[in-house]
Amino acid sequence: MGEFDLIDRYFKRPVRRAALGVGDDCALLAPAPGMQLAVSSDMLVEGRHFLSTVDPARLGHKALAVNLSDLAACGAKPLAFTLALAMPQVDKRWLAGFAKGLLALADEHGCELVGGDTTRGPLNICITVFGEVPAGAALLRSGARAGDDIWVSGTLGDARLALEVFRGTLQLPAEAFEIARARMEQPTPRVALGLALRGIATAAVDVSDGLVGDLGHVLAASGVGAALNADAVTQLIALGAPASGAALGVEVQRTCALAGGDDYELVFTAPASARKAVEQAGHASATPVARIGCIEAAPGLRIVDASGAPLTQRFTAFDHFG
Amino acid sequence: MGEFDLIDRYFKRPVRRAALGVGDDCALLAPAPGMQLAVSSDMLVEGRHFLSTVDPARLGHKALAVNLSDLAACGAKPLAFTLALAMPQVDKRWLAGFAKGLLALADEHGCELVGGDTTRGPLNICITVFGEVPAGAALLRSGARAGDDIWVSGTLGDARLALEVFRGTLQLPAEAFEIARARMEQPTPRVALGLALRGIATAAVDVSDGLVGDLGHVLAASGVGAALNADAVTQLIALGAPASGAALGVEVQRTCALAGGDDYELVFTAPASARKAVEQAGHASATPVARIGCIEAAPGLRIVDASGAPLTQRFTAFDHFG
Repeated sequence: MGEFDLIDRYFKRPVRRAALGVGDDCALLAPAPGMQLAVSSDMLVEGRHFLSTVDPARLGHKALAVNLSDLAACGAKPLAFTLALAMPQVDKRWLAGFAKGLLALADEHGCELVGGDTTRGPLNICITVFGEVPAGAALLRSGARAGDDIWVSGTLGDARLALEVFRGTLQLPAEAFEIARARMEQPTPRVALGLALRGIATAAVDVSDGLVGDLGHVLAASGVGAALNADAVTQLIALGAPASGAALGVEVQRTCALAGGDDYELVFTAPASARKAVEQAGHASATPVARIGCIEAAPGLRIVDASGAPLTQRFTAFDHFG
Repeated sequence: MGEFDLIDRYFKRPVRRAALGVGDDCALLAPAPGMQLAVSSDMLVEGRHFLSTVDPARLGHKALAVNLSDLAACGAKPLAFTLALAMPQVDKRWLAGFAKGLLALADEHGCELVGGDTTRGPLNICITVFGEVPAGAALLRSGARAGDDIWVSGTLGDARLALEVFRGTLQLPAEAFEIARARMEQPTPRVALGLALRGIATAAVDVSDGLVGDLGHVLAASGVGAALNADAVTQLIALGAPASGAALGVEVQRTCALAGGDDYELVFTAPASARKAVEQAGHASATPVARIGCIEAAPGLRIVDASGAPLTQRFTAFDHFG
């Protein structure tokens, strides 16, 4: 099967909103008047971002989800994406599964595949995603101000628990492991929350490399510091509840929640006066939100417990060249 | 050196036209009113699209050039691009060279780097490029009509000659090899010609996989056939001239010119009534153009010699999964 047949067979579908889709030299996008186009690219490499044993449908989901998560962090509405795919050989079963997971999530978000490239090579998935946002309305990393609350969506740390099980450093009961594994392999991009936070949040970023590291980008871009309540954060591990049977130690919980990575939740800031509006945005988008700290004028991130006492443990972000 | 330092050190520059550049979750692009955005992605893999020994500056040039060539084939004006890069390790000398070649070509075309991703993995370069074109003015593959002339820009086949030297199937004098090698490693995207052909050409495609194969995409998309003058095409090999000293056999010349690949020239169609306009577009963009055949109503591609007699030799496109 040749390169062009591959695209046709597995990925080509009728174009809806784009002016021109898969099959010409370029795709053509026509943003609505007054709209800016938000663009993000993520590259996923086997062994680094996913295990070779992952179900291809889950991988297709995740490859697009991590890109949609970037749109969510900007408050942009998904429009379209391109897919570039290098594969060591043509594996029809793998391709069918990958396309199924990818296109199911794309459909869920009305995000259409408009172009791309396939080639032979070590497995590598590169997606570039396009969204639209009214000019001036994008959520940036640079807007956090002293006094703002720090919020985070959903749950944190469970994806990292699954990774540690795969690495053999942790054991979980079967049911708990499946919950953690689903979080690692099929993250939920918080697109609806990002849209609902337009005009409310002052800054936002998605948690891909770990809460502490990604919040650090907001602090650096905004020229501020923060106090982060480690106890509030640690409560956000779904498997941290005694009922899960996971029986996690406090250090494991703190590390995974604060610096686990692969969460694809939104961490964002908003003035204290907007607490009700943030809660309504969470409710309207059916996304849990929790207040986990506050922005301060003094630079640096201070991680404290519920009593305000500083933690001595160090937490660092996951760095792909660390 | 960490992932974020890498981006900052080698690739981050002040943003000019984009609303927001490298360093947030998304880049923001603001197309001018009435403009459509043309988008294309290409993925380059070591050993498949380039040799491991290639000069990194030339590779940086080529990685962007092949994407700009897609914009050229649509008649789109380059605006911006994203870069996703997987590398087995951080090699500062390689990165500095790659960035230099990449950004020099980007500057030449006013095309700014607005975002991307870096990660550890087998060497893989994925660029997504954005250009603008007035709504309805893009050159598509589907517009060729019976009676149209077929034109091609520049020279054809020299890149393939260099590849055959690297493969050991051909020998060239040192000077001729350097000419061929430069064509293979530093193709010239025909952006100015593509812009000049708006409103003149009825269809266009860039020659990446070989003239015969890429022209075939135009024929298929347009529902037409063509007669291609193999002798006119073969004359377009720069190293085919006796003065080059390359002393190429006629079969080698035909194969390389008709199906060599990696040329990044434009093959396009235009009505016979537009011959003067096409020549003026070539002149205005300082790009040689040559008439090499004509579109016919009957499906299929007929390759003929200067007398009109059909050639029996078969020419096929380069297929990354062939």
